[in-house]
Amino acid sequence: MSNSTTTATTTATRMFSSDNAAGASPEIVDAVVRAAAGQASPYGSDTVTAEVRRRLCEIFERDVDVLIVSTGTAANALSLAALTPPWGSVLCHRDSHINNDECGAPEFYTAGAKLVPLGGDDAKIDAAELRAAVRNKAGDVHSVEPSVVSVTQATETGAVYTLDELRTLGSVVKEPGLRFHMDGARFAGAVAALGATPAELTWRAGVDLLSFGATKNGTMTAEAIVVFDRSLTAELSFRAKRAGQLASKARFHAAQLDAYLTDDLWLRNATHANAMAARLQDGLKAIPEVDLLGAAEANIVFCRLPQQVIDSLLSEGYVFYHDRWEPGVVRLVASFATSPQDIDDLLDAVRRHTA
Amino acid sequence: MSNSTTTATTTATRMFSSDNAAGASPEIVDAVVRAAAGQASPYGSDTVTAEVRRRLCEIFERDVDVLIVSTGTAANALSLAALTPPWGSVLCHRDSHINNDECGAPEFYTAGAKLVPLGGDDAKIDAAELRAAVRNKAGDVHSVEPSVVSVTQATETGAVYTLDELRTLGSVVKEPGLRFHMDGARFAGAVAALGATPAELTWRAGVDLLSFGATKNGTMTAEAIVVFDRSLTAELSFRAKRAGQLASKARFHAAQLDAYLTDDLWLRNATHANAMAARLQDGLKAIPEVDLLGAAEANIVFCRLPQQVIDSLLSEGYVFYHDRWEPGVVRLVASFATSPQDIDDLLDAVRRHTA
Amino acid sequence: MSNSTTTATTTATRMFSSDNAAGASPEIVDAVVRAAAGQASPYGSDTVTAEVRRRLCEIFERDVDVLIVSTGTAANALSLAALTPPWGSVLCHRDSHINNDECGAPEFYTAGAKLVPLGGDDAKIDAAELRAAVRNKAGDVHSVEPSVVSVTQATETGAVYTLDELRTLGSVVKEPGLRFHMDGARFAGAVAALGATPAELTWRAGVDLLSFGATKNGTMTAEAIVVFDRSLTAELSFRAKRAGQLASKARFHAAQLDAYLTDDLWLRNATHANAMAARLQDGLKAIPEVDLLGAAEANIVFCRLPQQVIDSLLSEGYVFYHDRWEPGVVRLVASFATSPQDIDDLLDAVRRHTA
Amino acid sequence: MSNSTTTATTTATRMFSSDNAAGASPEIVDAVVRAAAGQASPYGSDTVTAEVRRRLCEIFERDVDVLIVSTGTAANALSLAALTPPWGSVLCHRDSHINNDECGAPEFYTAGAKLVPLGGDDAKIDAAELRAAVRNKAGDVHSVEPSVVSVTQATETGAVYTLDELRTLGSVVKEPGLRFHMDGARFAGAVAALGATPAELTWRAGVDLLSFGATKNGTMTAEAIVVFDRSLTAELSFRAKRAGQLASKARFHAAQLDAYLTDDLWLRNATHANAMAARLQDGLKAIPEVDLLGAAEANIVFCRLPQQVIDSLLSEGYVFYHDRWEPGVVRLVASFATSPQDIDDLLDAVRRHTA
Repeated sequence: MSNSTTTATTTATRMFSSDNAAGASPEIVDAVVRAAAGQASPYGSDTVTAEVRRRLCEIFERDVDVLIVSTGTAANALSLAALTPPWGSVLCHRDSHINNDECGAPEFYTAGAKLVPLGGDDAKIDAAELRAAVRNKAGDVHSVEPSVVSVTQATETGAVYTLDELRTLGSVVKEPGLRFHMDGARFAGAVAALGATPAELTWRAGVDLLSFGATKNGTMTAEAIVVFDRSLTAELSFRAKRAGQLASKARFHAAQLDAYLTDDLWLRNATHANAMAARLQDGLKAIPEVDLLGAAEANIVFCRLPQQVIDSLLSEGYVFYHDRWEPGVVRLVASFATSPQDIDDLLDAVRRHTA
Repeated sequence: MSNSTTTATTTATRMFSSDNAAGASPEIVDAVVRAAAGQASPYGSDTVTAEVRRRLCEIFERDVDVLIVSTGTAANALSLAALTPPWGSVLCHRDSHINNDECGAPEFYTAGAKLVPLGGDDAKIDAAELRAAVRNKAGDVHSVEPSVVSVTQATETGAVYTLDELRTLGSVVKEPGLRFHMDGARFAGAVAALGATPAELTWRAGVDLLSFGATKNGTMTAEAIVVFDRSLTAELSFRAKRAGQLASKARFHAAQLDAYLTDDLWLRNATHANAMAARLQDGLKAIPEVDLLGAAEANIVFCRLPQQVIDSLLSEGYVFYHDRWEPGVVRLVASFATSPQDIDDLLDAVRRHTA
Repeated sequence: MSNSTTTATTTATRMFSSDNAAGASPEIVDAVVRAAAGQASPYGSDTVTAEVRRRLCEIFERDVDVLIVSTGTAANALSLAALTPPWGSVLCHRDSHINNDECGAPEFYTAGAKLVPLGGDDAKIDAAELRAAVRNKAGDVHSVEPSVVSVTQATETGAVYTLDELRTLGSVVKEPGLRFHMDGARFAGAVAALGATPAELTWRAGVDLLSFGATKNGTMTAEAIVVFDRSLTAELSFRAKRAGQLASKARFHAAQLDAYLTDDLWLRNATHANAMAARLQDGLKAIPEVDLLGAAEANIVFCRLPQQVIDSLLSEGYVFYHDRWEPGVVRLVASFATSPQDIDDLLDAVRRHTA
Repeated sequence: MSNSTTTATTTATRMFSSDNAAGASPEIVDAVVRAAAGQASPYGSDTVTAEVRRRLCEIFERDVDVLIVSTGTAANALSLAALTPPWGSVLCHRDSHINNDECGAPEFYTAGAKLVPLGGDDAKIDAAELRAAVRNKAGDVHSVEPSVVSVTQATETGAVYTLDELRTLGSVVKEPGLRFHMDGARFAGAVAALGATPAELTWRAGVDLLSFGATKNGTMTAEAIVVFDRSLTAELSFRAKRAGQLASKARFHAAQLDAYLTDDLWLRNATHANAMAARLQDGLKAIPEVDLLGAAEANIVFCRLPQQVIDSLLSEGYVFYHDRWEPGVVRLVASFATSPQDIDDLLDAVRRHTA
């Protein structure tokens, strides 16, 4: 038996299943290597953690607090726990990650709040439906109390809420006094796509807490909660510790985020991923057998492929989701690490199999 | 404003406050760097995660399952949640980390089980007290039900349960049908100190789940639950996801553990840390003004220092706990990264200030 | 200020809003009066509690265990907590009481399980929808695990699952290993309507736990969980105590149920309530301005009334729900205490206002 | 098989195990009988529930809100849940009911807060110990946060906090901003013993929420939370519903409390119970073989009896606790229903067996 360590990764880059198949940006790797030498104060009292906060204040153009956690699920669930009582409801899109893909983490962290699923195109919450939901049975002890609205930016289908849409939702949320959470698992992609500022897209539209995604866009294991309503910071800190989310060697998470925020790496990575999705979309558009479904606004492309193309791609080692929606519908996700060559190879393969 | 990333660490290595002030072993850093290139399957379906499991099976001489998590608090709290119902009690030492230092994480993860603190020297549970506690009000619906016993190996004071002690406790736990958890935050140090095998010190003594500590001993942000009772694996997997402990780029945690377990790095690191504590202890023994308190069995030394020595060390930049017990009592912790020179410098400083 | 005690009740019996507006059956009042004299063992160790269990064993033609609780919400939530892990899902009708009217009690008692709402006519779960739901993402840690199905008998709209329907659902539930709960808030009404035996309608169709409703049908403050899967009894007992549902003077609840089960009072009351609803339905049918909506199978009548009739009835002191569905839709509920005269008075009033 | 209902109670009144062995006061029985006739609004919107609140405002000389629940465990656990966050600690006496006898109900309702047991004579919290505990690790995220102090009045051993003692504790609680809960399971007995007003003994000493015990002192199944900090009322209402503590036919609980509070029945009952305990104590004092342990301040007498006396009393059908403390120590509890003859019979029996 060999005692050498194992390599997890493949040299081929044929995974278009999710941006989490990618590795980490070189700048982030370097920062982690540097953090490994010497000693540092534990539990987030180190200087890099402070620097991450400083950078986020700058990016969001105001004082914010920051909690660094290890997963997006933790970022979302902790945020929601601080924004709803156990007898509250979380209004979210029926296709949202918190509703479908977190194994009830929001219910666990909130001590049993109820997720109320709403509709809307492209996984965006419909404003009219929300307007009814925020007042539904409010104050009635027989029902859970509408407490927080959670939007995903960019959405689970890769669509992006426009600034106007966010402002509208924000006012629907705030008028009756609810709280506003944004799951920003792909927040960088949305900022890159919209051209609006991070401030405009969040707290200026009423967002109280933002799950600031980083892992899908270049870090290894670090995510952040950006706290706009700083009255929540102490509560979040206790909840994070209690949830096993306060790392003892916190500098290793902080170093990732520090590099991620330096020299706009987060935006450069997202801009690149969006461009790769656009390149893919443009290529697919030119193939008559392919139906594009919606327009890729960030780094996700949905299309319909003939079944034999799907089968052929899979047999060549391509990895992507294809059995979750209607037959023939395929989701392809680009990432910061996707190269133009990766896209062109995929387009070639599709062309070959449709020929 | 500079845009260069910040360095968290100090060049001086004067932190003896905890082993979590150290960085990471070079082998582990290398493994993380390698994991950053290319693509890998997410959520633990990668090849390195499988390799970690294979290595732990080998080390523990039997089939085990493994859950990789990001903190020791999560490892402990998840384990306890799988071993007690919400109406159960967790019998533990009153000085244990789970009782004092995790902000109620066990209560959170277990949905409200009760920690029942027991006494015993050196933070080791007294067997006679345990014998009474495991049957206390068992079956009485007015009381919480004795359900799981948790021991820390090595203990919070750096003491080590002997193999005989563990076997005794194990039989006290198992005879009335309770479950047995080991918080192995410093498990490597205990193995290194005792010479017994990992198997003897755990499942052969009745342990059902082990929090296999790694961060204090050389990794960055990775810990593992070693599952001896594999009927618990599915439950633990759901609980881990729900707790935000299933990393999307899980290979980055797995790579740390893979390197940690390769070529006995985990034992070499612990043996070194223990040797550094012994070197410190031997040096302090020769200084008349210093009272050693107990014998360092792993990597922690307790002693009593004159107040002016404490003050002088602090003013030189040394960092250690000194105000938590009686006046003058000091805790000094060595780690895998502590050098003989670091120890000798500290001893020189103590000598200087007592002169 | 008068020191005499206050009377809660009205002499007019114009509340058709719910069967919980009624008082208690005279036999039950007598039993409570008798229970008030002398001493009894507390916490359910009294002889009447044992007698209630004996009567339920007889009624259900097998050994059952019984937990007596103070509300239907507690009966439902406790039952569900024993049938699903926190990471499980509860499949139920979207109009069910547990989903809409218990302020998240199931989520609280289960430590955060997720209610998954299903469709179906007359608030009955559609078997085809259920068939898909019981296997949806089973075993996938990213999703909650389908764990328990809860049906309401009679349903929230007063419809009754036939024996065949229950058997079909039962086999859909049990084939993949899920658990089966019945919210029997109006179970007596269903038994009275169907003519099938209590055994056939519950455990013979696969039901594991039954919330055996009593308060709506003649008791004051007592409900029961009938435990067919007796391996759950110990867990339920601890959960009940912990939930504040173990009454110290438990005999006062038990006495209500004992009288309720004696000489078929529970069935006689339900038969009467159903007959009163039928009388009301027959009367309304003859009034051209009234549209009956569905057929009353138990004690609930839905109909559409002209708005001026609704207004006039309300102004005469009649109480009923009318603003929860489409405009003009009205729900009228009869109870064990409704007299033929009460029904005839109501019919007269409707006729007068439509004239 | 007979179909007649069963009688729970015994004619002999030899249960001195707890005041919950007693039945209900005749005035309370009458009120329940009256409540059973006619219709009433459900869920506490009836007129008697309003009247209970009015009476409690009068008794406590200020505006209070009231939640009526079915058990003392629910009253305590709900109150604590409103006064501590999940990451908080509940400081209480180590012998308190909430710590030992509620199967973790406080942990369940609070979503995992931690009970921190303190010492003190006669089950009263020692003020000096409390003074240290209220600041212990406050603000430290590694530890639970001191949040609420709970005292039992009268205590589990029948002792009574004096007005001065309560004022002292109240200031210790309030100075650093903690909340103050009183478990008044035997509150009436304390008021009767002390002569101080209900207001002085509660909110004027800083109490935020009072579990106002009634069942041990004459009601059947009704307890109340008296809410002095009315900003907590909405939260308590949601929590109560969600816990299954909002009765649909709430008038049946309210009627009990209404009668209990009318014409000082609650104080008359308690005064009588205390007098019976005093009569018992005086009688025992005259028997040389009996050692009285402490002075009965309310309705509980502790004494030491020769083992053969204990055995003989048990064989005659007397019921009391005797195996929970040191050998020979016996607890005897009088109630509102204990007659002078009951006491004299018991004294005769003790004399006979010691002769």
